[in-house]
Amino acid sequence: MITTTKNLELFLETRKLTEQICKPLEIEDYVVQPVEFVSPPKWHLGHTTWFFEEFILKKHKEAYQIFDEQFSYVFNSYYESVGEKVIRTNRGNLSRPTVNRIYEYRKYVTEALVEFLNENEISQELEAVLEIGIHHEKQHQELLLTDIKYILGNNPLLPIYHKNFNESKIENHSHKWLSIEEGVYEIGKPEDGEFCYDNEKGRHKVYLNEFFISNKLVTNEEYLEFMEAGGYQDVLLWHAEAWDWITTEKIKAPQYWHLIDGSWYQYTLSGLKPLAPEAPLAHISYYEAFAFAQWKDMRLPTEAEWEIAQEKFDWGQRWEWTESAYSPYPNYQKPEGALGEYNGKFMVNQKVLRGGSVATSPKHTRCTYRNFFHPNLRWQFTGIRLAQ
Amino acid sequence: MITTTKNLELFLETRKLTEQICKPLEIEDYVVQPVEFVSPPKWHLGHTTWFFEEFILKKHKEAYQIFDEQFSYVFNSYYESVGEKVIRTNRGNLSRPTVNRIYEYRKYVTEALVEFLNENEISQELEAVLEIGIHHEKQHQELLLTDIKYILGNNPLLPIYHKNFNESKIENHSHKWLSIEEGVYEIGKPEDGEFCYDNEKGRHKVYLNEFFISNKLVTNEEYLEFMEAGGYQDVLLWHAEAWDWITTEKIKAPQYWHLIDGSWYQYTLSGLKPLAPEAPLAHISYYEAFAFAQWKDMRLPTEAEWEIAQEKFDWGQRWEWTESAYSPYPNYQKPEGALGEYNGKFMVNQKVLRGGSVATSPKHTRCTYRNFFHPNLRWQFTGIRLAQ
Amino acid sequence: MITTTKNLELFLETRKLTEQICKPLEIEDYVVQPVEFVSPPKWHLGHTTWFFEEFILKKHKEAYQIFDEQFSYVFNSYYESVGEKVIRTNRGNLSRPTVNRIYEYRKYVTEALVEFLNENEISQELEAVLEIGIHHEKQHQELLLTDIKYILGNNPLLPIYHKNFNESKIENHSHKWLSIEEGVYEIGKPEDGEFCYDNEKGRHKVYLNEFFISNKLVTNEEYLEFMEAGGYQDVLLWHAEAWDWITTEKIKAPQYWHLIDGSWYQYTLSGLKPLAPEAPLAHISYYEAFAFAQWKDMRLPTEAEWEIAQEKFDWGQRWEWTESAYSPYPNYQKPEGALGEYNGKFMVNQKVLRGGSVATSPKHTRCTYRNFFHPNLRWQFTGIRLAQ
Amino acid sequence: MITTTKNLELFLETRKLTEQICKPLEIEDYVVQPVEFVSPPKWHLGHTTWFFEEFILKKHKEAYQIFDEQFSYVFNSYYESVGEKVIRTNRGNLSRPTVNRIYEYRKYVTEALVEFLNENEISQELEAVLEIGIHHEKQHQELLLTDIKYILGNNPLLPIYHKNFNESKIENHSHKWLSIEEGVYEIGKPEDGEFCYDNEKGRHKVYLNEFFISNKLVTNEEYLEFMEAGGYQDVLLWHAEAWDWITTEKIKAPQYWHLIDGSWYQYTLSGLKPLAPEAPLAHISYYEAFAFAQWKDMRLPTEAEWEIAQEKFDWGQRWEWTESAYSPYPNYQKPEGALGEYNGKFMVNQKVLRGGSVATSPKHTRCTYRNFFHPNLRWQFTGIRLAQ
Ligand SMILES: [Fe+3]
Ligand SMILES: [Fe+3]
Ligand SMILES: [Fe+3]
Ligand SMILES: [Fe+3]
Repeated sequence: MITTTKNLELFLETRKLTEQICKPLEIEDYVVQPVEFVSPPKWHLGHTTWFFEEFILKKHKEAYQIFDEQFSYVFNSYYESVGEKVIRTNRGNLSRPTVNRIYEYRKYVTEALVEFLNENEISQELEAVLEIGIHHEKQHQELLLTDIKYILGNNPLLPIYHKNFNESKIENHSHKWLSIEEGVYEIGKPEDGEFCYDNEKGRHKVYLNEFFISNKLVTNEEYLEFMEAGGYQDVLLWHAEAWDWITTEKIKAPQYWHLIDGSWYQYTLSGLKPLAPEAPLAHISYYEAFAFAQWKDMRLPTEAEWEIAQEKFDWGQRWEWTESAYSPYPNYQKPEGALGEYNGKFMVNQKVLRGGSVATSPKHTRCTYRNFFHPNLRWQFTGIRLAQ
Repeated sequence: MITTTKNLELFLETRKLTEQICKPLEIEDYVVQPVEFVSPPKWHLGHTTWFFEEFILKKHKEAYQIFDEQFSYVFNSYYESVGEKVIRTNRGNLSRPTVNRIYEYRKYVTEALVEFLNENEISQELEAVLEIGIHHEKQHQELLLTDIKYILGNNPLLPIYHKNFNESKIENHSHKWLSIEEGVYEIGKPEDGEFCYDNEKGRHKVYLNEFFISNKLVTNEEYLEFMEAGGYQDVLLWHAEAWDWITTEKIKAPQYWHLIDGSWYQYTLSGLKPLAPEAPLAHISYYEAFAFAQWKDMRLPTEAEWEIAQEKFDWGQRWEWTESAYSPYPNYQKPEGALGEYNGKFMVNQKVLRGGSVATSPKHTRCTYRNFFHPNLRWQFTGIRLAQ
Repeated sequence: MITTTKNLELFLETRKLTEQICKPLEIEDYVVQPVEFVSPPKWHLGHTTWFFEEFILKKHKEAYQIFDEQFSYVFNSYYESVGEKVIRTNRGNLSRPTVNRIYEYRKYVTEALVEFLNENEISQELEAVLEIGIHHEKQHQELLLTDIKYILGNNPLLPIYHKNFNESKIENHSHKWLSIEEGVYEIGKPEDGEFCYDNEKGRHKVYLNEFFISNKLVTNEEYLEFMEAGGYQDVLLWHAEAWDWITTEKIKAPQYWHLIDGSWYQYTLSGLKPLAPEAPLAHISYYEAFAFAQWKDMRLPTEAEWEIAQEKFDWGQRWEWTESAYSPYPNYQKPEGALGEYNGKFMVNQKVLRGGSVATSPKHTRCTYRNFFHPNLRWQFTGIRLAQ
Repeated sequence: MITTTKNLELFLETRKLTEQICKPLEIEDYVVQPVEFVSPPKWHLGHTTWFFEEFILKKHKEAYQIFDEQFSYVFNSYYESVGEKVIRTNRGNLSRPTVNRIYEYRKYVTEALVEFLNENEISQELEAVLEIGIHHEKQHQELLLTDIKYILGNNPLLPIYHKNFNESKIENHSHKWLSIEEGVYEIGKPEDGEFCYDNEKGRHKVYLNEFFISNKLVTNEEYLEFMEAGGYQDVLLWHAEAWDWITTEKIKAPQYWHLIDGSWYQYTLSGLKPLAPEAPLAHISYYEAFAFAQWKDMRLPTEAEWEIAQEKFDWGQRWEWTESAYSPYPNYQKPEGALGEYNGKFMVNQKVLRGGSVATSPKHTRCTYRNFFHPNLRWQFTGIRLAQ
């Protein structure tokens, strides 16, 4: 099948990029898990590999020899239906398998899969699983970068990941409110044969009131104004749960911001830098995005508004928090079997983010892509686009 | 003003009903708080009273003498902007003020308010505050009943609240799927002068696909089938957070169900009873509602679907979980000042419930009413209506 | 048997005193449990009664009718071997049985026991159980008073228990260091037929170095000096666990001390009072006692030192923290059966206190009495006597 | 000074041994902290080095250049008085400094100290600090081995540390009860110029009753009998806190025991092995030691009994739990300044262990040595010797 050739290339390119992302790391950096939602880089390397072994090779490659029987237990993540797994908080407690051993595992599985694809005509179903596996690894590439940032950025030595990594491009154009007329629109992925996740499917109509959306992301400077105006102290700007959160966690600024001798600095993947006032804000929670919008007497867009308006502005630097809760689209179909656990089971208590970020894997952004996180999380490159 | 007369009556009738609800209680029952989200009945009695004192009498009644300076601290609930408050988990630790003292407080405030209303022409703004105060107390009447059920139902002696309280009416009519055509509809409260909360306002258009909705609530019998088919053991039916929840909390049945010598019983406000198979199911979480719908290969309605379809079926026995997250309607306006804390600050991580229940206060149901709870809570009379 | 007559009187006198202690309470005060280690007064009333029913009437009284089958579950405390029990943290969640019902229970059991004792010659073993039951109730009388103090003293309204309750007698005599010579001494209860607990038995020899012990308790004034000298801020004075404790719990003064407009007040059972400088200090933890002694360059006595020296000073106002861990005496014998759970199972991680307090039941002090608490607890009337 | 030459050798030998212990490790093994009380091996390497830098070089070596200013923050452990420190639970979250960098640090400090000692006549006080530094590192050598065992033994792959590490020597001689006569004895370190810790000092008299002590450690076989007789299920054998602990933690066997297909295996530093029935038991808590002794109708010795009897038996394979709480000896003197934090601040809520173990550093055992741990800990090579 022709698609496979394309996917074979995409597969190889993806496998390679994952390893390139890890190049600047020391062995020690691969191991730690400073907080539950961050995984050790070596776990990402193994887990993305396990996916191909578990869902393709083990089931479909004749006489396939499993690399190590115990890896399934170590590298399974959330597929409860596939069997036992190391509990998430425990990932950073495992020194073995070593990083070298995991690179051997990667090589072994990559080669076995190439062999398999070269030697077999595969079904459309299997092709779909392959595609999911590739895009799954792409997703983990972004997590790898943000997890690495967390690991290094929470080390008191604040080590540099890569001196050339540029996290922000300043949006130089002047500010404008883009207006969208009231009416019935369509959102969701059209059936055009391109890859997408189950949660984007089911293109459907929505009714939108007239609204206005900003052509620029909120900048560090604008957010600093909010801070200096006492935004973090004004209870009326915050959700009840948000107020508990900033109080308990003593939140007073975006993640990775440091106040040193009266000036603000920002830890970036290229090290600690003075805060760039005009750069787009990053690393804020939904709670903070919401409070900032309240303070401005504005609001966040819904995901439908974002999707309809997005053609009119540049996006892709920051994951943009929307007001929309992560829910199934009308007629959402959960895939059969273990892969059914992929998206649907997270559709409660999370908020949709749209766009993409400087850490997003190439060929992994789409205007219909529905990213989602709990409203308090901010280690992703999250930002704000205002609406009203 | 004419409205005030109507509201004066509603006020007195509401104040009286609160106390009637408490009639069957022993003094001891007024005091305890077995779990954070349940408040002691005496706290409800004081808190609903404090609302009128704080927002009307203190600010507007000339020469008003505060009943007890310290009550503000004791009976404030969540109005962070109004001052310090006893933290929620601490309510059940306070033996004083005594129940008698709180009844005196009620009498004092009720009389002062009547005097105030009789002697003053009040502004429309204040009339609105009065209305909110009355409906606030009505909301607490339902909480009173469900909190009393929790307090008694978690006592190993399983005491009866009132032997005549009937929690369920069997829906005798035969089952039908009601169908609604695709199209643009309107939801939200029309501006008809009737009272409603801020969160219902802003009637607006929505686009709905064709859908089908059940003319009956799910019964105990149907839910038992799900349980007996292993519903609580099949991970693929559950949200990820739901699975953690049933595992950690060892959830295996709806709240208040007891398995005694192989038969199911249900604790009700009229005591422990054999499970009534045909009665509408109650006391399940959103998580369980969702899993049940998954198992049926169906789904829960959205709140828009519910609101559009509701004319075609009977409702009001159970709060019906919807698939909709609790979010602001387009053009939602938060009220100014402390009352702005009323609804908006809860608009994250909660699910909308529609309908009403056997515990709902009279004149407190509307087809546009948006109730909301966290997805794991089930001490309210919650139930399931399926859609597809 | 002659002893029984004496014990019958002691029994009746004890039962009565328990109820007298509760006289000043409102019904509501009987119900709450503001912290795990405090029990609701109504629980104490029931639990001390249950002891007699469980260990005497149920087993020995012919045709004894149990008052209520479920009370065993509700009022068992720590006798794991006797059956299930309401978990300790749950006691304050039970509104039923009501206070009145528990008073009926008390009357029923008291009368049944009197009848039993009048109609039967009882064995020496049973006599011993009766004595333990009486002294058990005496122990709970002290807990009742200190739990009531905690319940009222942690209520923002700071209600008075009884206006005549005097917590402190000033020690007017001048300060002296009492000296005890080096040598072999004997401690532990002599076998003189008087009642004592198992943990005091086994009189045995100990070797003591020469030491000095104060003839007075530390006063509020002296402790205030320590506070004002920065005692709570000097890490070198504290045990590592103590430092964690004062940091986490934000401890800055003894329990029940309030700083109001720059002056210290003390909540007492007769209400809030200005701190009495010369009164003996109360309500400090072992950690604080130890840090205070360190600051003075002195130490706390061991329990052997205390027992040998006690004839030379007045004691009984405060439970005096000793440096001794609560361990079994040489040749300690745990009683057989369920009553074996009485003392021995607590012999780890607790500190011995000696003396007695203003809350101790009459006829419940002895110079060999070994009281014990975890080192962080301070709701008892605990104090400090220095040694060097 | 002559002593310095001896100490210089001991210093170099100790520094070298620490690194030899780490030889078999992979880089990854140096980094993780699977539980709070286990420290990453790289932390031990840095911390023992920091001790010499902080307490000797920084204060006394002329023109000493600190290796890295931030290491003080990273490698300080519990010296609260010396400044801020990375909180203990956070050690395993730090991937940097790298293992290589820490080895450079070790080399740098070792060489600087050798230079310092060669070029300076040092005071007796400083000599004492040097000695403490060396013995401090020896203590950490034992922790290194037990922490490594924990790190590898809790990895599902159960990797081998070193195939020749022998954890147990079978005691072949026949069992005997050694008897010690009643009388006054002396315990504590004599002043003989040999190194010891502050907590052993102050040789003093104690009075002992006649007692009997076993000439052998309890074996795996004997403990298995206890398990098979239902020891873990009989509440009357356990302390109240112990029962909570085994219930909450689901403890059913000593640490590192695995039941595989009906047979017991034991993870050792040389890998997973069938349980050796005659080998001395290891890895039990004080709670388990106590319950076992109860079951046998015997008891654990006190530390005084152990010290008096120890000449009559072989010891040094297992740290032997005693019944004694860790308290100061009479006349205990806490050292001045930061080193005063060394021992005294732990003298509460811990139990004394005597003897030594297969992991104890050479020249680090003494019959007066007072080791101490919380009663629930069992990752050290702890064992049981019975007394009666
Ligand atoms: Fe994944
Ligand atoms: Fe309220
Ligand atoms: Fe008791
Ligand atoms: Fe250390």
